[in-house]
Amino acid sequence: MSAAAVGLGKMVDNKQIIFKGYIEQRAPEETDMEVKVGNKMKLEAPKGSGAILVKNLYLSCDPYMRARMRDFHGSYFPPFVPHSVVEGFGVSKIIDSDNPNFKGGEFVAGFTGWEEYTLIYKTEQLRKVEPDHRIPLSYHIGLLGMPGFTAYAGFYEVCSPKKNEYVFVSAASGAVGQLVGQLAKLHGCYVVGSAGSSAKVGLLKKELGFDDAFNYKEEGDLDAALKRYFPEGIDIYFENVGGAMLEAVLQNMRVNGRIAVCGMVSQHSMSDPDGVRNLFNLVPKRIRMQGFLQSDFLHLYPRFLEEVGSLYKQGKIKYVEDRNEGLQTGPTAFAGLFSGKNTGKQVICVAHE
Amino acid sequence: MSAAAVGLGKMVDNKQIIFKGYIEQRAPEETDMEVKVGNKMKLEAPKGSGAILVKNLYLSCDPYMRARMRDFHGSYFPPFVPHSVVEGFGVSKIIDSDNPNFKGGEFVAGFTGWEEYTLIYKTEQLRKVEPDHRIPLSYHIGLLGMPGFTAYAGFYEVCSPKKNEYVFVSAASGAVGQLVGQLAKLHGCYVVGSAGSSAKVGLLKKELGFDDAFNYKEEGDLDAALKRYFPEGIDIYFENVGGAMLEAVLQNMRVNGRIAVCGMVSQHSMSDPDGVRNLFNLVPKRIRMQGFLQSDFLHLYPRFLEEVGSLYKQGKIKYVEDRNEGLQTGPTAFAGLFSGKNTGKQVICVAHE
Repeated sequence: MSAAAVGLGKMVDNKQIIFKGYIEQRAPEETDMEVKVGNKMKLEAPKGSGAILVKNLYLSCDPYMRARMRDFHGSYFPPFVPHSVVEGFGVSKIIDSDNPNFKGGEFVAGFTGWEEYTLIYKTEQLRKVEPDHRIPLSYHIGLLGMPGFTAYAGFYEVCSPKKNEYVFVSAASGAVGQLVGQLAKLHGCYVVGSAGSSAKVGLLKKELGFDDAFNYKEEGDLDAALKRYFPEGIDIYFENVGGAMLEAVLQNMRVNGRIAVCGMVSQHSMSDPDGVRNLFNLVPKRIRMQGFLQSDFLHLYPRFLEEVGSLYKQGKIKYVEDRNEGLQTGPTAFAGLFSGKNTGKQVICVAHE
Repeated sequence: MSAAAVGLGKMVDNKQIIFKGYIEQRAPEETDMEVKVGNKMKLEAPKGSGAILVKNLYLSCDPYMRARMRDFHGSYFPPFVPHSVVEGFGVSKIIDSDNPNFKGGEFVAGFTGWEEYTLIYKTEQLRKVEPDHRIPLSYHIGLLGMPGFTAYAGFYEVCSPKKNEYVFVSAASGAVGQLVGQLAKLHGCYVVGSAGSSAKVGLLKKELGFDDAFNYKEEGDLDAALKRYFPEGIDIYFENVGGAMLEAVLQNMRVNGRIAVCGMVSQHSMSDPDGVRNLFNLVPKRIRMQGFLQSDFLHLYPRFLEEVGSLYKQGKIKYVEDRNEGLQTGPTAFAGLFSGKNTGKQVICVAHE
């Protein structure tokens, strides 16, 4: 790829998605971000900066980003800066590099900006991606990115799964849940997922190999629903939603059950979320509830890439994406996560290479 | 001890405490049990029964017994039988034995009846107690009994304690909490306890060696109180109460904190207990919440007896009892557990040998 082909050194209009300002007690809305045009940028990595200039191809919409929209500095991620470009995981192509570890034409996955081109200074957080025609590039922010690794680390390292155990996954068609369920099936477990539409339920049962699935919105009594799907009770709950579902699950856990807590997306936005009123179940059932972050398990990332990449190439697992075309769809796509509009991993396609 | 001395074969009036009937959505009251007199009993272990006849010396009032006052058969203990004698842990002296493993004059600790004399058929659950003038017999239902073992197994096996960690114990002057705090101190931790009266707080600080303690009833804002006592946050919470205190603790846990859940006595009686609204803290703080029952760790009981008995005899730990004299005080003493009337382990002294 020649410098001329990528327009190296040229001034471009770099379209951006801007974070407008902090929100507290509600779910994110489309209007919390805005599309900004007219930002001029020179396509080069400045000499002496150590930075790389990338063209962003795919951007990831992830629920954890909600936490960065709050003016709170005690979290594991700093908050977004109002009136600045949104930051998130992406897959990008290097246009120019002032860093000896990277060169033009290579692909990287990691934190980038919600914009067409980004100068990345913190290159140590990037992972190089070797193009492989058998694996879509966008999977490096999904199946083989943070969500997939969350499923992998959470299921194997936190849930302590055993063959023939009963596994329940909420938000099961989402970026994380769909892989948890498939890994659990491959592990010899019985797996039921819940989701918020009949289309998603169909996907879980027909495409993703779940033993069963249900639409939680159609169940007036979640406790009764779980008793129907798990007459023997639940050994493992991969918790993605919190609130009423967690309460119903606690009623239906088996002795020595494990609950891996990673999401609670339904509770992210609320200042007074639903209380869980039946935690006393933890005692007689000796339940272990474990919160976790995938970032604590990064030493397992190479093994994860090898194993899950190989399972995918062998056709043993699938991965469903919900792709929006164009950077300008970002605000809508992101807000949609919080009302369950996405089916599968929500990706924004900024450019096709 | 001669047969004549214990009145062997004689008919006696065996005073009993009777469980009147199931209760559901409230705390136990004194009137849920009644004293029954006039029950004639022959002081012998019937030939061929394999049973032993014991004279009960000390009976244990334990919060878990609340669960047996409910008409629910799915728990780890069967419910009490209405109009029958209350069952609980006790220290007893053998009067007569039809079992080759036991003989008259020996002392046993284990399940017995809330009555003066009990015929025990399930002798396999009993533990023989060797009288030792350095250890009060009643401690075999407290410090060296189920509550003490709950503290021991919970602290060492569930809390995964490390030196210099910050430990918080609720219901800290109770049968379990007082030992948890002292074991934590011996382990090199910084320990703060909460209790429900200034007398109990004084006991924790002056007698039991806690680094600090507070009266939760005097704290309008539990979150603020915990921030004052744990400016660096809490690594380990030994959970005995549930509800609002757990919620405040979750706000103040440190990363990789552990919560051992054993009691939740404040929630036992309520059909609609307070909800815990901030479980999302589990995720960024990677908190492990583990429910446990001491009965899962019984293989450690011999080591516990050796270690804790030895620490006590060396004067390195203390144990505070609240003793009521006379079987007839049982209903009041038991009900008092649920309003915090007891200071220390609640024991009923039925007879002094």
